[in-house]
Amino acid sequence: MGSLEQAPVRIYDTTCRDGTQGEGISLSVDDKLKITRLLDELGVQYVEGGWPGSNPKDADYFRRVRDLPLAHARITAFGSTCRVGSRPEEDVNIQALLSAETPVVTVVGKSSVAHVLDVLRTTLEENLRMIRESLAYLRARGREVIFDAEHFFDGYKADSEYALRTLGAAVDAGADTVVLCDTNGGSVPWEIEAITDEARKLLPAGVSMGIHAHNDGGLALANSLAAVREGANHVQGTVNGYGERCGNADLCALIPNLDLKMGMAVLPWDQLARLTRLARTVAAIVNQPLSCQAPYVGKSAFTHKAGMHVSAMRRNPQSYQHLDPALVGNRSRVIVSELSGRGNLESKAEEIGIKNLEQGDLPGVVQQVKELEHQGFSFEGADASVEMLLHRAQTDYHPPFEMLDFMVVVEHRKGQGVFAQAMIKVRVGGEIFHSAADGNGPVNALDRALRKALMPVYPHLSGFDLADYKVHILNGERGTKATTRVLVDMQNATRRWTTVGASANIIEASWMALADAVEYGLAAVGAE
Amino acid sequence: MGSLEQAPVRIYDTTCRDGTQGEGISLSVDDKLKITRLLDELGVQYVEGGWPGSNPKDADYFRRVRDLPLAHARITAFGSTCRVGSRPEEDVNIQALLSAETPVVTVVGKSSVAHVLDVLRTTLEENLRMIRESLAYLRARGREVIFDAEHFFDGYKADSEYALRTLGAAVDAGADTVVLCDTNGGSVPWEIEAITDEARKLLPAGVSMGIHAHNDGGLALANSLAAVREGANHVQGTVNGYGERCGNADLCALIPNLDLKMGMAVLPWDQLARLTRLARTVAAIVNQPLSCQAPYVGKSAFTHKAGMHVSAMRRNPQSYQHLDPALVGNRSRVIVSELSGRGNLESKAEEIGIKNLEQGDLPGVVQQVKELEHQGFSFEGADASVEMLLHRAQTDYHPPFEMLDFMVVVEHRKGQGVFAQAMIKVRVGGEIFHSAADGNGPVNALDRALRKALMPVYPHLSGFDLADYKVHILNGERGTKATTRVLVDMQNATRRWTTVGASANIIEASWMALADAVEYGLAAVGAE
Repeated sequence: MGSLEQAPVRIYDTTCRDGTQGEGISLSVDDKLKITRLLDELGVQYVEGGWPGSNPKDADYFRRVRDLPLAHARITAFGSTCRVGSRPEEDVNIQALLSAETPVVTVVGKSSVAHVLDVLRTTLEENLRMIRESLAYLRARGREVIFDAEHFFDGYKADSEYALRTLGAAVDAGADTVVLCDTNGGSVPWEIEAITDEARKLLPAGVSMGIHAHNDGGLALANSLAAVREGANHVQGTVNGYGERCGNADLCALIPNLDLKMGMAVLPWDQLARLTRLARTVAAIVNQPLSCQAPYVGKSAFTHKAGMHVSAMRRNPQSYQHLDPALVGNRSRVIVSELSGRGNLESKAEEIGIKNLEQGDLPGVVQQVKELEHQGFSFEGADASVEMLLHRAQTDYHPPFEMLDFMVVVEHRKGQGVFAQAMIKVRVGGEIFHSAADGNGPVNALDRALRKALMPVYPHLSGFDLADYKVHILNGERGTKATTRVLVDMQNATRRWTTVGASANIIEASWMALADAVEYGLAAVGAE
Repeated sequence: MGSLEQAPVRIYDTTCRDGTQGEGISLSVDDKLKITRLLDELGVQYVEGGWPGSNPKDADYFRRVRDLPLAHARITAFGSTCRVGSRPEEDVNIQALLSAETPVVTVVGKSSVAHVLDVLRTTLEENLRMIRESLAYLRARGREVIFDAEHFFDGYKADSEYALRTLGAAVDAGADTVVLCDTNGGSVPWEIEAITDEARKLLPAGVSMGIHAHNDGGLALANSLAAVREGANHVQGTVNGYGERCGNADLCALIPNLDLKMGMAVLPWDQLARLTRLARTVAAIVNQPLSCQAPYVGKSAFTHKAGMHVSAMRRNPQSYQHLDPALVGNRSRVIVSELSGRGNLESKAEEIGIKNLEQGDLPGVVQQVKELEHQGFSFEGADASVEMLLHRAQTDYHPPFEMLDFMVVVEHRKGQGVFAQAMIKVRVGGEIFHSAADGNGPVNALDRALRKALMPVYPHLSGFDLADYKVHILNGERGTKATTRVLVDMQNATRRWTTVGASANIIEASWMALADAVEYGLAAVGAE
């Protein structure tokens, strides 16, 4: 599975293009390259990277994506047909598509009479010419060509004959795949079924049929599955359903439904179990919390709260879940206070080789985790902070440094800009080190002052980089009085570790995470 | 519409019972009474208030709900059949159901052989007896009786004959409605269709058939609609789809689909337009942010970002939305972002009634938006900051204050804790105001110092609250040198507005958003 030829249905991801039309979604070129790599690893067959004609960022992506070694994904560039009255060879959009140098291009054209007349303001024949000439031009230049028939279903409902003629024009021009789009997302599954069936009758055997569904009626997923049942073998969607208005079909629900409910394994062997991780990583990249309730991949997707359900699950693990969460890389959770913790901490201590932890110390650490989580810490993902709690519980642990005081000043003077400075006082062994540094923000200044203070004793600190810094505001309804959680990623040449801090004061929360990260680096990573 | 007799499909809400099984959802008795009243006003036919046998909170609800004057909703109490080996007259659960004194009771019983054998650990005949006797007992005491056939679809797939016999037992006992439950949420629409069709053939004409779908496959909505097409005239769900694991069928998507897509008006005349407000009020009550992407009722459900879409909408308002948002009480919004063009700003200027903007000013504002977004601002959602750009482009705009200097100090002294203070200097008219304040963090201190400085001139500032404060770290790979984007929500009694700031310095970014929010409040909202 996974290659174009073998998959019963090909998955086409448009997170980097249609996904970015979602409110609050904005991706840098680096973000898009990261997402592309993740999708390729998962085994997705097509990755639509952007619209090279629309902005310079996307053109940059297409230059850089050529250097990515991809195992499964074909990169595709998106654009519209040539404009009214223009020829492909002189059309900016079409030329931008070519210059993206992708193996595949996806061209969107209008299939609805109303849109041709009201929005394009041209004749029905001219629209057919634009489709035909644009596709034929790109096909002749060696591209695999996908035609997105915009508003196909709405167009069909108003004038079926013309909607089908636009598909015919694409086929005549040599399109490899024709995609039926429910652009406004308002169709219902039985309409999709009936109309897709009509389209299938018209398409020659060699041409693939695709579906592109939006979720305005809450039915993008059901509509996509309905189209597959009527013969669509190409499905477009986005990770976590990002997209304009109510979003696109959610690939994280679509892929397991195809595989586990319809028996169509669309990913390479064993990759489905990476789905939950992909969903959460992409959510972190777009910086939007993934809905806990997200089917298959959400944090609550296999979480049991009702006492009756929990006791039934003890008798039969599958009694209140539709499948084994491990299939999609998720896990069952039971919400019962105080249950988590000890078992997890025990295995963590074993994992990092802490042996001289007395049995009696463990409940103390469990208690500490609970209290800190109550304050706003979250140790999920902040493994290094968990390990530091365990290290500190050992009687023979000697911290590499001890923080005494810090002070941060941020000053803005009209006409002179903004300045940030930090002073810091630490003790190493018996000695006090007092240092100061400036930075382009308060946390950067703190980071620099801390390194400056410690570097004489721990010169290998210069090999540690702050790789990531994230801020979450908890209980946001309390405005600037809310609790702030900070996650810091630090790395050296061989390892990367995450720590957490939380406080009503964002500087203090940052300091906690930063100090933990440096301490972990010195105590547990060392000068590897 | 709205009464039981006239509605083609009856809506059964279980937000107060099954909804509270969702992770993080907990409702007080007052919350439940508020939600009951809102659902009644909307015209929902059944409101399931709780499980009187399971906890004292629910028993209290049933006592208090009797005093609510309800126009449409019948209150129903939920419980399970009598226990294995027990008679209804001696069963605690059944007696609790009776003592709730509701006109309707809903009794859940098992329809799956595996659950009878593995979970109940009794015989198949005993389970049928429990169903029959429990329902007959309640029916004989004047209750309208609804039978929830738990795991009906999974049970049917494993042993269709037995699953149907459980329905038969309910019918024999006089059940008014038999509800087919996809308890684990793993069924697909074509299964629901086929199995519902079989159930319908068995049920006598006077018995209603219902559907209760969970969303584990992402298909609760489609499954509910499929059952309605096969004859179900009773649909269970929750507001915003709250519920265990991935939730229940979302009534806020279900109701408009039934009405606007299937022509089944299930609410009283004119009530559909209150749906968005209901969804948001209930979200506030359960204290969970409503997904922006929620179909029909989400903030982004009719929001347009792509420049191409916005310009098409100016030619035809319905070109990129499936229906008029006013039908469900929502509205269209246009987002101004780097992806959008001049048209979006023009629409925004019209929306807020700015007329004395010279034609030449608009490209300047577009350019400003692009440059600021390049620096890390994001105007999506930060409508108030966009409006401030437009206001400032007017030659006759006079800012209510001018910021000169600020200074923030955060200090940590070992053993004494952490302190935050801010000093601020602003000019109002010709006068300089210089103030200082402390806070529990640097941004809180800045906020307090700014208010302190401006309050003598603008006393209505005391009516403005900081409602939300969000931080996004952009290009996180640069560690603490990364750009920080801050979004601030401010509100007074009648309005709420959002502003944005961005800088490598988190304090400066926060300051920008904060100052914009206060300026917008003073300039555009005023002392309403």
